[in-house]
Amino acid sequence: MDIKQKIETANQLAVKRMIDGDPVLVDIAPAIEVIPGMKDKMITHSGPPIPWNRMCGAQRGAIIGQVLYEGWAKTPEKAAAMLENGEITLEPNHHHQTVGPMAGSISANAWVYVVENKTFGNRAFCRQVEGAQQFGDYSEPALDGLRKWRDVFAPSLRAALKAEGELPLKPIITQALQMGDELHNRHSASSALFGNAMAVGLAKADISRQDQISTLYLLKNHNLIFLGLAMAAGKAIVDPVRDVEFSTLVTAMCRNGTEFGIRVSGLGDGWFTAPSSSVTGLYLPGYSAQDAGLDMGDSAITETVGWGGFVLGGAPGILSLVGGTPDEALGYTREMRNITTTAHPFYRMPAFSFAGAPLGIDIRKVVQTGITPIIDTAIAHKDPGYPIIGAGLVRAPMECFVQALKAFSYKYQGT
Amino acid sequence: MDIKQKIETANQLAVKRMIDGDPVLVDIAPAIEVIPGMKDKMITHSGPPIPWNRMCGAQRGAIIGQVLYEGWAKTPEKAAAMLENGEITLEPNHHHQTVGPMAGSISANAWVYVVENKTFGNRAFCRQVEGAQQFGDYSEPALDGLRKWRDVFAPSLRAALKAEGELPLKPIITQALQMGDELHNRHSASSALFGNAMAVGLAKADISRQDQISTLYLLKNHNLIFLGLAMAAGKAIVDPVRDVEFSTLVTAMCRNGTEFGIRVSGLGDGWFTAPSSSVTGLYLPGYSAQDAGLDMGDSAITETVGWGGFVLGGAPGILSLVGGTPDEALGYTREMRNITTTAHPFYRMPAFSFAGAPLGIDIRKVVQTGITPIIDTAIAHKDPGYPIIGAGLVRAPMECFVQALKAFSYKYQGT
Repeated sequence: MDIKQKIETANQLAVKRMIDGDPVLVDIAPAIEVIPGMKDKMITHSGPPIPWNRMCGAQRGAIIGQVLYEGWAKTPEKAAAMLENGEITLEPNHHHQTVGPMAGSISANAWVYVVENKTFGNRAFCRQVEGAQQFGDYSEPALDGLRKWRDVFAPSLRAALKAEGELPLKPIITQALQMGDELHNRHSASSALFGNAMAVGLAKADISRQDQISTLYLLKNHNLIFLGLAMAAGKAIVDPVRDVEFSTLVTAMCRNGTEFGIRVSGLGDGWFTAPSSSVTGLYLPGYSAQDAGLDMGDSAITETVGWGGFVLGGAPGILSLVGGTPDEALGYTREMRNITTTAHPFYRMPAFSFAGAPLGIDIRKVVQTGITPIIDTAIAHKDPGYPIIGAGLVRAPMECFVQALKAFSYKYQGT
Repeated sequence: MDIKQKIETANQLAVKRMIDGDPVLVDIAPAIEVIPGMKDKMITHSGPPIPWNRMCGAQRGAIIGQVLYEGWAKTPEKAAAMLENGEITLEPNHHHQTVGPMAGSISANAWVYVVENKTFGNRAFCRQVEGAQQFGDYSEPALDGLRKWRDVFAPSLRAALKAEGELPLKPIITQALQMGDELHNRHSASSALFGNAMAVGLAKADISRQDQISTLYLLKNHNLIFLGLAMAAGKAIVDPVRDVEFSTLVTAMCRNGTEFGIRVSGLGDGWFTAPSSSVTGLYLPGYSAQDAGLDMGDSAITETVGWGGFVLGGAPGILSLVGGTPDEALGYTREMRNITTTAHPFYRMPAFSFAGAPLGIDIRKVVQTGITPIIDTAIAHKDPGYPIIGAGLVRAPMECFVQALKAFSYKYQGT
């Protein structure tokens, strides 16, 4: 076989593994119990590796919040000083089978979703989604949100899972894609289906009626709760593809607000990075593009497995959040077919006569066509201390793919 | 004002009343407690008035089932004999502020949704949706479904409503239309949202844990439960328009499997009927067009208020059930703009850049354009004794609209 054939064979194997992925929610647990390598005085974060002094404002704010939440410091100033002094270990979520939305900060006593890929046995983890602390807000109300999750919601959901059994996510994802979700920023359907699925377990669980009712209210009123599950599912689906020799498929896209990083299957766990881009989108009242930080979060794991921007044409409801027209949305999905390997046989879109989601981003096709992956995303403030300020669309930087293709040529062809 | 101006003014008043409609689920109760005029040895049915000897097979089957359910006869043969002998009063649901899916049979001890239009104070009622008895199946398993609803599900939901308070349906309908439901045969989103909304009440209600869990399982696994609520909501929305002098807008479309009937606002409660049509659609395994009965059910109340076939372009997910392409679905919605009065300001479709649902069917426009309302519907068997056999699309018969327009001219112009 010549190298081209080897690449085709490898990419077919890689997409087959992704298609075969069977993500199941098996637990919700404190990070220290379940995330490999998690330890005291350590915080994991979104995006490729980055030291404290190069982190963007929103990620700094979130990490200060995480230090306060853990009680390692009593004030934001003391938390910042500990971080400056290197007293807190900072590592990417992706180095720990983990992903996190926006700043993505996770520490020992943060409760995370535990998703197991039943086909391959690997596990992935993700923290909960909320609109304040993960955007850099370290105020008391923002931290109270984390505490309520830790003390009431997460333990109740854990008990519900124990009572009713593990929850397969593939059926929810399949249905939600046919109900106008794109599974990155629109999770109206998946969250409602998740709420219904958990309600039975909450009724059976050995928890107080008060905790049951509080958690049911959370589920009833939350139209984004499934994002954490979609992200963990995406990570669990793609991780068995992290090491396919000769494969040119992307296995991670993530951003820390300073840099955008990708990983490529045939190149293992190396990062190919470029500066994060500005997001084009709509802002919440009181904010504008001048306030915006750059593209941030591990949530582009959803696009990595063919959701999010890649299925925007099936989810026009999200346009009220990110802007644009239904025709543009359909166009993005069609465009992504040019840089992907196949159409997913299970994850389908009614608006395209039930055609499958574009799956398997090929760095060769990205570089050849000049088309970079489209990502829909929330927007954080450029400075620490703010909640969500908007949402919009952004392209992955071409430079990551060019670098990766060069590295690929060097590794496999010596040039 | 000349008559044309009077009609325009009347139609604007009529659509404003429909737009202002605020349907709220206030109770779930036995028909005898709440439906005006309901009495012992009486069964109400879908469609315009029809005697037993002209009823189609599916409606006969359902009504036999209803007699058995009430215990008025012990065998199907004895039930049929009672009906032949005129021992059971048969009246249309629409004569009792009520609607019912498919055969639509309702009797004293059938539990119905009670929806109140808070803007105008009127109430409307609808029975629950299931796939067997309302299609004409009177077997023991089919009747067991009715009994389980009466003994467990309906009382539990009633208790949940009492515990948590009345449930506004407008927000659920608004959201569901943005999640790919068309609110006639696709109720994936509305049912999931309803399930989440009721879960809190079920946790607070004074019912057994077993009933709570059984009802949660019903809600979790039911992707059509909201149809009964959408139908009651539609009826509650349109009833305040039943008597607007000079209005040419349709206030009811319904079918008994033998005849299709419409009512027109300026013509009060008179019926204009034509033979029911065949449905073009997809069949469940083991059935074909040769087995099909004709168009049946009060569920076209959803199209009457601008949902169902009228918003098919926003709900391509339903095409796997009824057939057709996304472009055809978009085309139906565009076509319905030609025979309607306005675009609904609250019920919007993302696929049309959030344009509103086509609202207010004008019999003048139907006759002038030759375009009749498109309805998506389930298909029942032509003979008694079968559950659901398929689903598809059907047009309202032009003859109803021609007759109504003639009657309108006669009433208001004397010709």
